[in-house]
Amino acid sequence: MERITSKSNQLVKDIKRLITSSGERAEKGLFVLEGARLCFDVLNSAYSVKYFLITDSAFEKYNKEATELIKLSESSYYISREVSEKLSDTKSPQGVFAVCEIKKTNEKLSDKIIALDNVQDPANIGAIFRTAEALGIKSIITHNCCDIYNPKTLRASMGGVLRLAPKESDNLEKTLKALKSEYKIYSTVPDENAVRITDIDFSTPCVCVIGNEANGVSEEVKAASDKLVTIPMLGKAESLNASVAAALTMWEMLR
Amino acid sequence: MERITSKSNQLVKDIKRLITSSGERAEKGLFVLEGARLCFDVLNSAYSVKYFLITDSAFEKYNKEATELIKLSESSYYISREVSEKLSDTKSPQGVFAVCEIKKTNEKLSDKIIALDNVQDPANIGAIFRTAEALGIKSIITHNCCDIYNPKTLRASMGGVLRLAPKESDNLEKTLKALKSEYKIYSTVPDENAVRITDIDFSTPCVCVIGNEANGVSEEVKAASDKLVTIPMLGKAESLNASVAAALTMWEMLR
Repeated sequence: MERITSKSNQLVKDIKRLITSSGERAEKGLFVLEGARLCFDVLNSAYSVKYFLITDSAFEKYNKEATELIKLSESSYYISREVSEKLSDTKSPQGVFAVCEIKKTNEKLSDKIIALDNVQDPANIGAIFRTAEALGIKSIITHNCCDIYNPKTLRASMGGVLRLAPKESDNLEKTLKALKSEYKIYSTVPDENAVRITDIDFSTPCVCVIGNEANGVSEEVKAASDKLVTIPMLGKAESLNASVAAALTMWEMLR
Repeated sequence: MERITSKSNQLVKDIKRLITSSGERAEKGLFVLEGARLCFDVLNSAYSVKYFLITDSAFEKYNKEATELIKLSESSYYISREVSEKLSDTKSPQGVFAVCEIKKTNEKLSDKIIALDNVQDPANIGAIFRTAEALGIKSIITHNCCDIYNPKTLRASMGGVLRLAPKESDNLEKTLKALKSEYKIYSTVPDENAVRITDIDFSTPCVCVIGNEANGVSEEVKAASDKLVTIPMLGKAESLNASVAAALTMWEMLR
């Protein structure tokens, strides 16, 4: 296994660009996982690993999983602490990195779907994937959201992004219209005149749309919905964080 | 109104210490709000303002609210952009700061209480206050948590900390035992053998305890509880973020 000790090594530079630029990720079809937990989560996912990089001390610490990942990976490298610090998105890097191939999912949609319309905060998207996985929502459609392969999103999702296989939609209105014969479409809105989410019958197949942090669900998507639904609030209105609103929505879908 | 232009001004140094050190905040009985929204939220709160600091450009932009806050504040100062940058916890400071007095609440507890046992992440605590306010939970007891006057907590709470008047408990077990004649005490646990939260009757006065991110609710507090309750998860277990678990709990308390 080769060793990379220089921060100016070309592969290190290329990986750094994949970490910082969503355009680069889209162009190369690759993304980067950092940290022991996320990297070793790949072992139980459908993703392929192109490069695996690990410091000596991390290899000692995570010997078993690292050995497995080295087998799985196209190429693997030992890296110096300097290289690890250069690549890391955190203050105390664990020294474990995996470059994986972005893959399009062909999985059939399940009967409870969350659609994210222009959700922009990487931490919110990550938290939504994490909660979806915990509560048992199996299908997520994203439209015009921040890149789910952003390091912050991957971290906040606790690996949920790796296991949930989201579908990306170029045109959410069209995607939802195509689903309408099989699914009820509900857009969540901060509007007390909408139907209370506790009054919806979620026993049939349905899609719930969560909108942008500031502007909510787009007008076209609202128009394409069967109902506008809202989370009734006793306190100060319009004040739920997007990831909390999504959590309460998913909870009600499965309750 | 005096003008402070030097980063080494003693008041600037004192305020910076209040921002960075929870010990300093406790000793001086003061905390610092940053940003237009949070500072002007003080106008509708019970907090007293000791110092108000604002840059010229922020004063122009927020003239009306700033003028009100200047009236309310013991002392006010114009500050240079350098001073604002020195004080700021963010990359693009808005140039508005208020130093407020920490106050102990004497408010009567309401009939639905959230107790936070050793919750340590400032963003989680802030998110819990924000959600509590939105959903209508009016009483929060904190025990051994990170300082709620931490800048990150104040920001994540969207001002909720200013309006909710949390009570601090030195000994949560004792506090809960004292409440037991009037309230049911429920500790939330990630244990599928506990009572499902959807099976609890929340119509009577109750306290729900949310535990530490890694270790959950302490053994003593669990022992002092009427029931251990859990959020049923269909997916991967033990994987809800503390602020999401708290949100679902509060939702069920008020549903």
